[in-house]
Amino acid sequence: MIAKQNVLVLNCGSSSVKYKLYEMPEKQILAQGYLQQIERDQYENAIRSIFDSLKDFPIDLVAHRVVHGGETFTKSVRIDEDVKAKIRELSRYAPLHNPINLTGIEIAQSIFPDKMNVAVFDTAFHQSMPPSSFLYALPYEYYEKYGIRKYGFHGTSHRYVMGRAGELLDRPKEQLRLISCHIGNGVSITAIKYGESFDTSMGMTPLAGLVMGTRSGNIDPGIIPYIEEIEQTNTTGAIEILNNKSGLMGISGVSNDLREVMAKAEEGHYQSQLALELYTTIIHKHIGLYLARLNGVDGIIFTAGVGENNAVVREMVCTGLEFAGIILDRETNRNCKGEAFISTPYSMVKVMVIPTDEEIIMAADAYELSCVHFDSST
Amino acid sequence: MIAKQNVLVLNCGSSSVKYKLYEMPEKQILAQGYLQQIERDQYENAIRSIFDSLKDFPIDLVAHRVVHGGETFTKSVRIDEDVKAKIRELSRYAPLHNPINLTGIEIAQSIFPDKMNVAVFDTAFHQSMPPSSFLYALPYEYYEKYGIRKYGFHGTSHRYVMGRAGELLDRPKEQLRLISCHIGNGVSITAIKYGESFDTSMGMTPLAGLVMGTRSGNIDPGIIPYIEEIEQTNTTGAIEILNNKSGLMGISGVSNDLREVMAKAEEGHYQSQLALELYTTIIHKHIGLYLARLNGVDGIIFTAGVGENNAVVREMVCTGLEFAGIILDRETNRNCKGEAFISTPYSMVKVMVIPTDEEIIMAADAYELSCVHFDSST
Repeated sequence: MIAKQNVLVLNCGSSSVKYKLYEMPEKQILAQGYLQQIERDQYENAIRSIFDSLKDFPIDLVAHRVVHGGETFTKSVRIDEDVKAKIRELSRYAPLHNPINLTGIEIAQSIFPDKMNVAVFDTAFHQSMPPSSFLYALPYEYYEKYGIRKYGFHGTSHRYVMGRAGELLDRPKEQLRLISCHIGNGVSITAIKYGESFDTSMGMTPLAGLVMGTRSGNIDPGIIPYIEEIEQTNTTGAIEILNNKSGLMGISGVSNDLREVMAKAEEGHYQSQLALELYTTIIHKHIGLYLARLNGVDGIIFTAGVGENNAVVREMVCTGLEFAGIILDRETNRNCKGEAFISTPYSMVKVMVIPTDEEIIMAADAYELSCVHFDSST
Repeated sequence: MIAKQNVLVLNCGSSSVKYKLYEMPEKQILAQGYLQQIERDQYENAIRSIFDSLKDFPIDLVAHRVVHGGETFTKSVRIDEDVKAKIRELSRYAPLHNPINLTGIEIAQSIFPDKMNVAVFDTAFHQSMPPSSFLYALPYEYYEKYGIRKYGFHGTSHRYVMGRAGELLDRPKEQLRLISCHIGNGVSITAIKYGESFDTSMGMTPLAGLVMGTRSGNIDPGIIPYIEEIEQTNTTGAIEILNNKSGLMGISGVSNDLREVMAKAEEGHYQSQLALELYTTIIHKHIGLYLARLNGVDGIIFTAGVGENNAVVREMVCTGLEFAGIILDRETNRNCKGEAFISTPYSMVKVMVIPTDEEIIMAADAYELSCVHFDSST
């Protein structure tokens, strides 16, 4: 038997740090906070200030979010020198994120040299995908030699809502086919087959897939030279436009925030109406893609900022999927709060809203690894 | 009443010319032929030699295939100076094709100065798509100022098989929702709603969409800078790799010809097995995409080289679509020839093989325009 453990969950983004301190296994939150708009040269100080603010709590474990685990990491791991070297190596796929994740790890290790640090990877959940999901139709050596393949992201979120869906449906997840729609700042949809990620919409990078706040998602790659000509730029410049000036922002010309786009659309602003229409149409189409991938599903999950809170988007997405036994209950959809079933009782496919919680998964993974460690070291 | 007309159908590709001479309205073929591997500097001579070989036939009309009609041409048109200028202008979207199509037009006009020439556009059928199908999530001015949008291709083929499907199903096409799978050297899938193209898989260029012989189809655009680094090339070089060294060829490392890839896969060649698996999976997924787009369909059509002749591909594609009422009859699928229903009698969705015939549509369009012209000039 292992004692209670306080797990600090640390999520170091490119200009922000989120943290949550849990008492495990009770999952009780002892402290939490959020620092944003951190300048690069202030990053270390920001992380140190978080540890300072927590100095009255005994911290037993630190769980770090790491964006890219490549093909190396298929689950959360205890961090040692070798793991750190691999995370560093994988920076080539996530040059903005992995180095910052490493910074967080190193500061935590320096402050608590004798505590266990655990890495939880955004990509790990998707490592179960078969080659027919993760390969691109490129020269095969690009995959073999350079690791160019679909990795997928938001894995921790998809994994969390999958677990909750199993509980809400009262069926073992090993029997379920689910489509998980993580619709927030980033958007990714995952086909989950019998407890494992089977296909997902993001690619080697988080630019791929659906329309997002400022990201284009997939486009005809043949367009890129035209963008370079229009903007008199190079590939880097073109990809930056696809990442930062496209998506809802690009079409609407108004905002990357869906709420603002919808408000403008309501007022009759044509480009905002187009942006909303394209955004929801592409989610709708992707659900079809994964219905085919799974030969029908038991449940569809909406999660993350938009997925949890935007009933209009959920209604636009689900309308026109009746052919597959997906019947939304519009009233319930509009009035639901928190976890909810939003399909009618006779809908073959259950449609659910499940607020995501990546931190609780991170804390649980770290706690579990510490138990294993404790067991194996006694 | 109008007399019989002999219509020469001319399809000038980048290094080949196909022609067929029809007696209309009987659709009787009087002559046909195919020249290939034509050098650029021999192109004019090649076309002239075709006209020479046909000098014993009176030719009343010439129908020209033109690849890109942009947003200007929503149907086939009689060619005049203004039309030629617009085709020339649209060369920016199809730099390899429109100029050669124009060469064909000009030679035909010089040889038969008093005959009607008609242009039939690959893109025209898709002009009925709504913005939610044709827009990219890019800065909106790219569309408004530069025409960057999805145009789609193979329109004449999709239109032909749609017409035949209506006849085979004995229902007006205005009541049908169809998915047309043109699977040949190029691959494109079109969602057809009530007689019109509603969505299609190719994009602004024919690189987009599914896996093809040497084309990658859609990939995460974020991969392009990695390709440039691996190959030490620029954007043009990277797009060329996506166009000419990817697809079945890239993954299998064996061939761009599906038959060769399948033979190798049969022998146990791993990369060929992967190539076949990815190729069919992506067609399967796209059918799901368009099932969602149309909220279910009445029929699915397989056409073009692979679609018409490859029962294994059809079976791999349709297996796992049973959730949507698509039940293939495997025996019939394997043994069918020509036009055939290949779904079981109790399949809600009818699956059909329909050999395509772009030339007959071109001849019919030209003949029809000549009748209109005849009517209005009397």
